[in-house]
Amino acid sequence: MPFLDVLLGKPLPTSEERGEQIGAAAGIPIFGLDALSSAAYGPEAALTLLIPLGAVGVATIVPISASIIVLLAIVSLSYRQTIAAYPGGGGSYTVASENLGRYPGLLAAAALMIDYVLTAAVGISAGVGSLVSAAPSLQPHTLAICLGILALITVVNLRGVREAGFVFMIPTYLFVGTLLTTIVVGIVKVALAGGHPVPVVPPPSPVPATTAVASVWLLLQVFSNGCTAMTGVEAVSNGVRAFREPTVKTAQRTLTVIIGLLALLLAGIAYLVRAYAIAATPPEQAGYQSVLSMLVAAVTGRGWFYDVTIGSILVILSLSANTAFADFPRLCRAVALKRFLPHAFAFRGRRLVYTEGILVLAVLTAALLILFGGVTDRLIPLFAIGAFLAFTLSQAGMVAHWRRVGGRGAARSMAINGLGAVVTGLTTLVVLVAKFAAGAWVSALLIIAMIGAMLWVKRHYDQVAREMHSETPLALTALDRPLVVVPIQDWGKTAANALEFALTLSPDVTAVHVAAEDDQGRLQAQWPRMVDAPAKRAGLEPPKLVVLPSPYRLVVLPIVDYVLQVEAANRGRRVAVIVPELVEQHWYHYPLHNKRAEILKWWLLLRGNPRIVLVNVPWYLKT
Amino acid sequence: MPFLDVLLGKPLPTSEERGEQIGAAAGIPIFGLDALSSAAYGPEAALTLLIPLGAVGVATIVPISASIIVLLAIVSLSYRQTIAAYPGGGGSYTVASENLGRYPGLLAAAALMIDYVLTAAVGISAGVGSLVSAAPSLQPHTLAICLGILALITVVNLRGVREAGFVFMIPTYLFVGTLLTTIVVGIVKVALAGGHPVPVVPPPSPVPATTAVASVWLLLQVFSNGCTAMTGVEAVSNGVRAFREPTVKTAQRTLTVIIGLLALLLAGIAYLVRAYAIAATPPEQAGYQSVLSMLVAAVTGRGWFYDVTIGSILVILSLSANTAFADFPRLCRAVALKRFLPHAFAFRGRRLVYTEGILVLAVLTAALLILFGGVTDRLIPLFAIGAFLAFTLSQAGMVAHWRRVGGRGAARSMAINGLGAVVTGLTTLVVLVAKFAAGAWVSALLIIAMIGAMLWVKRHYDQVAREMHSETPLALTALDRPLVVVPIQDWGKTAANALEFALTLSPDVTAVHVAAEDDQGRLQAQWPRMVDAPAKRAGLEPPKLVVLPSPYRLVVLPIVDYVLQVEAANRGRRVAVIVPELVEQHWYHYPLHNKRAEILKWWLLLRGNPRIVLVNVPWYLKT
Repeated sequence: MPFLDVLLGKPLPTSEERGEQIGAAAGIPIFGLDALSSAAYGPEAALTLLIPLGAVGVATIVPISASIIVLLAIVSLSYRQTIAAYPGGGGSYTVASENLGRYPGLLAAAALMIDYVLTAAVGISAGVGSLVSAAPSLQPHTLAICLGILALITVVNLRGVREAGFVFMIPTYLFVGTLLTTIVVGIVKVALAGGHPVPVVPPPSPVPATTAVASVWLLLQVFSNGCTAMTGVEAVSNGVRAFREPTVKTAQRTLTVIIGLLALLLAGIAYLVRAYAIAATPPEQAGYQSVLSMLVAAVTGRGWFYDVTIGSILVILSLSANTAFADFPRLCRAVALKRFLPHAFAFRGRRLVYTEGILVLAVLTAALLILFGGVTDRLIPLFAIGAFLAFTLSQAGMVAHWRRVGGRGAARSMAINGLGAVVTGLTTLVVLVAKFAAGAWVSALLIIAMIGAMLWVKRHYDQVAREMHSETPLALTALDRPLVVVPIQDWGKTAANALEFALTLSPDVTAVHVAAEDDQGRLQAQWPRMVDAPAKRAGLEPPKLVVLPSPYRLVVLPIVDYVLQVEAANRGRRVAVIVPELVEQHWYHYPLHNKRAEILKWWLLLRGNPRIVLVNVPWYLKT
Repeated sequence: MPFLDVLLGKPLPTSEERGEQIGAAAGIPIFGLDALSSAAYGPEAALTLLIPLGAVGVATIVPISASIIVLLAIVSLSYRQTIAAYPGGGGSYTVASENLGRYPGLLAAAALMIDYVLTAAVGISAGVGSLVSAAPSLQPHTLAICLGILALITVVNLRGVREAGFVFMIPTYLFVGTLLTTIVVGIVKVALAGGHPVPVVPPPSPVPATTAVASVWLLLQVFSNGCTAMTGVEAVSNGVRAFREPTVKTAQRTLTVIIGLLALLLAGIAYLVRAYAIAATPPEQAGYQSVLSMLVAAVTGRGWFYDVTIGSILVILSLSANTAFADFPRLCRAVALKRFLPHAFAFRGRRLVYTEGILVLAVLTAALLILFGGVTDRLIPLFAIGAFLAFTLSQAGMVAHWRRVGGRGAARSMAINGLGAVVTGLTTLVVLVAKFAAGAWVSALLIIAMIGAMLWVKRHYDQVAREMHSETPLALTALDRPLVVVPIQDWGKTAANALEFALTLSPDVTAVHVAAEDDQGRLQAQWPRMVDAPAKRAGLEPPKLVVLPSPYRLVVLPIVDYVLQVEAANRGRRVAVIVPELVEQHWYHYPLHNKRAEILKWWLLLRGNPRIVLVNVPWYLKT
């Protein structure tokens, strides 16, 4: 299939696994896109809630960002330890299920799976949303652009981990580079202006000075909105196996760089927003402009640098879905290896990636995008809850891990992970309470449903394994040759071929013929010359011809009924049904031939029993 | 499948065919809906083109309608003769192909098929369009309503001819009854008022008196627009087999009643439109009102009678698609019997209707409706051309028929059909010229493409028949037992079952095992105890175990390659591949098990040859 080779690259043998592993430079775009891109929406989500507070609100962003950065540092330290402890991949599922037990593990898995699907959909639609607001003529094509980007991300991921790293490297570094430049330039300008810089392009409306005081409830809401900036932090620990030797060090370095960059971006944005007094504008109103757009314009004006920066933000947002594509298949593999998901998720495809997981994520994401017409704002409240639940379970699992492992340094490690567990646990509660009515309850229900489904899959696999298991040797007592039934519609080469093969299998061959509405008895008339005579000459028992009536014009069911009768009348002997099958070499011939052979196979399997065996004798057209 | 029984009714045996046949009362709604409902849009289509001529235009409708009625009478007489000559169903395809040859027949078939699909889509969307303009709050659901009506018509037709007649009887007779009542009341009022009646509700704008003169080109356009009222006239002759004894007389009576009613409606509408001076209003402009709505309001006012009449028009328009559902499957059957379409079109399903044709028409109609969002105005110019082309070919075919048959009355019959052929031929030319730029060229291209496709189908079937044909008796020379290959992944009950069956077929059995990434050699270790020892005890040659490497982690392709090698190394012997297959009893277990058995069968059939035979040994889960 050369088309697949072009689209996805040539198949890679398992022995090339090492060549597909990556370093930190490729790891940052692959596992950090989600975390880094959240700098583009986390502060904005927090500032939007602060609009009513005017200048007080703008100032509040600094302590809020500071607390998020502290949280980030704690979580990051925790995850460094997880990477060291689980070099084979320490996703929240693995850590929670190995240390806390089956149900916490499944809870983490379900929460993360739902989180990834939502992240992928929301990421793409957020990027396309910004693009569309920059170029309104694209508005009618929102969904098509979303699906196009999804297709691109899917294909790149199916091509393998290394290629994905290279493709996403340029936009990632462009985004980080331009934003950091803006921050440095901004800080210098603030310092030169003695703390009161003059914006190159002032924000559209000045911030009203109010004397309002933020309520605790509002601050909690602002904090939990800001916490969306933290989703994606667990990605590296989940994908340790993708990094090259020394695996643990490379993964840890990648995580540190990602978190460091994210913290710098968050801190710089918060500082400049306050210095330039930039309040968010209400979304879904005329004149809306994103906080980053106002900030970059205030610092550098609206020249080419503005265009490049804003352009890279659009690109990075729509590609942030890629982190979900890197992690979701790995998570599904880990769960499938424990038999809680179909086996197919554990197989590596032609390019050494977990094809099934990538495809399932692509289909689910596409379904969400289509369902919401490419505008998934309403899904945003649903997804932070899954990420924080997984954080908490992972950290708590690590605490149990250190307790079990013990030894030197275990107490210190336990303290770090314990701190992480407590702060992320509290954050989970805050997010759950703050967002419950807004949609977090949907996430909760979905998580419960997913856990139920995974338990059901496991139970089914266990049952099948018990039934199939056998330590008994072959029992070769009933080696009678089978009774053979050959359905024949007309005399011709396929019928002759099937009968010839039948006679090599057994001396007991019966041909069955279903009489059509206008049957002329032609086959019966031909039988003595075509079959009886040659069989007798070869010294064989001639196959009998049985004609079946068909009052309902059906062809398949009378044959199935006849086979079941034969089997019932000859208990203990196997019945082999020979199905002559015309093989179409061209797909466009498919609708031209009836599917009776397939329908017959299907019915016989469905209504049959282990003593009824199907034999396909193919027939190939020369043309 | 009790659900199907509820939806479609219990299967009918072939012997109940007579009970499914219908009389004239049911035949009129089934085969006349299309023709009769065209009274609702034919005059309107003509009057719309006459708007610029004001009062002169309104008066012109009378001669135009008169000429259409004359044409209708001629065509009707012609078709009465066709019915008598072809009591087995004398659709244009049958008549043209039997009398004029293969290509005129295919031309008629292609033209009619395209016509039917367009009629079905345009009919439904016209009815829903009127409904939506009466109740604008339904506007956003246009497509959903269209598809709902399509589903209703499809199910009713799948339930059988008799039920379809009963379902459509009430709306048809309500439509004809209310419209005839309006006409009678109108004519009486005109007579009482001495030719100058006072409208109960006057038309929205008075007709301007102009002195314009209609150009010949405009009159031709008006005539061809009005001719859309004639589509559907051939329906009865195509479906003669659906009528009960005396078949020919019943069908002829049905045709006469349909044409008579249609002529009465057209004449009455034309007369009253002129008497009440009702000009069409420009469509797609504010204040648009249909001609029939203005006419009924002018004659009877806007009381309950108005509501019932307009309601019945909406219903009848959306159900007019039913004629296409009655005829398209019969046409496809006739073509499929001559092998120009897939055989499946010729089979009668559980309710003695041609299920495949009904389903294909439903899918094509749904595709058109979805493509055009339920508003198919742009398709209208495409469909009269197909109908008139078919009329012409049918009449011309009848001329050839009488010439061949000869005898008493042949000359008279030939004259009638000849007249029909000439006038419909001329009309075809007029419609083609008048509508060519507006879209008739699309019809022409589609007709050519359909003819190409039908010729291709026929050629393929002929080739297959030639290849499969055999008058040679069985050749029983090579009766060697086959080489048997059994793929085994792990030792278990399915593997044991497959091997036991393999040993009943042949002494030459080989098991193949594909080594997985982390294969531990467990199966090889078990082999002597599980297989070798019992086989030797039973006095059989023990099956060999062949282990295949799999550098690309594939399971199926190494087996396929091995089987092809074995076959190549043993030319002349058959190779039977035993595929143990787990049969899922529940559809929801389907995604839980790998599809290797099916993929293996598929690859072996695709890359194999007639000497490679597949044996499915099923395994059933008890749970």
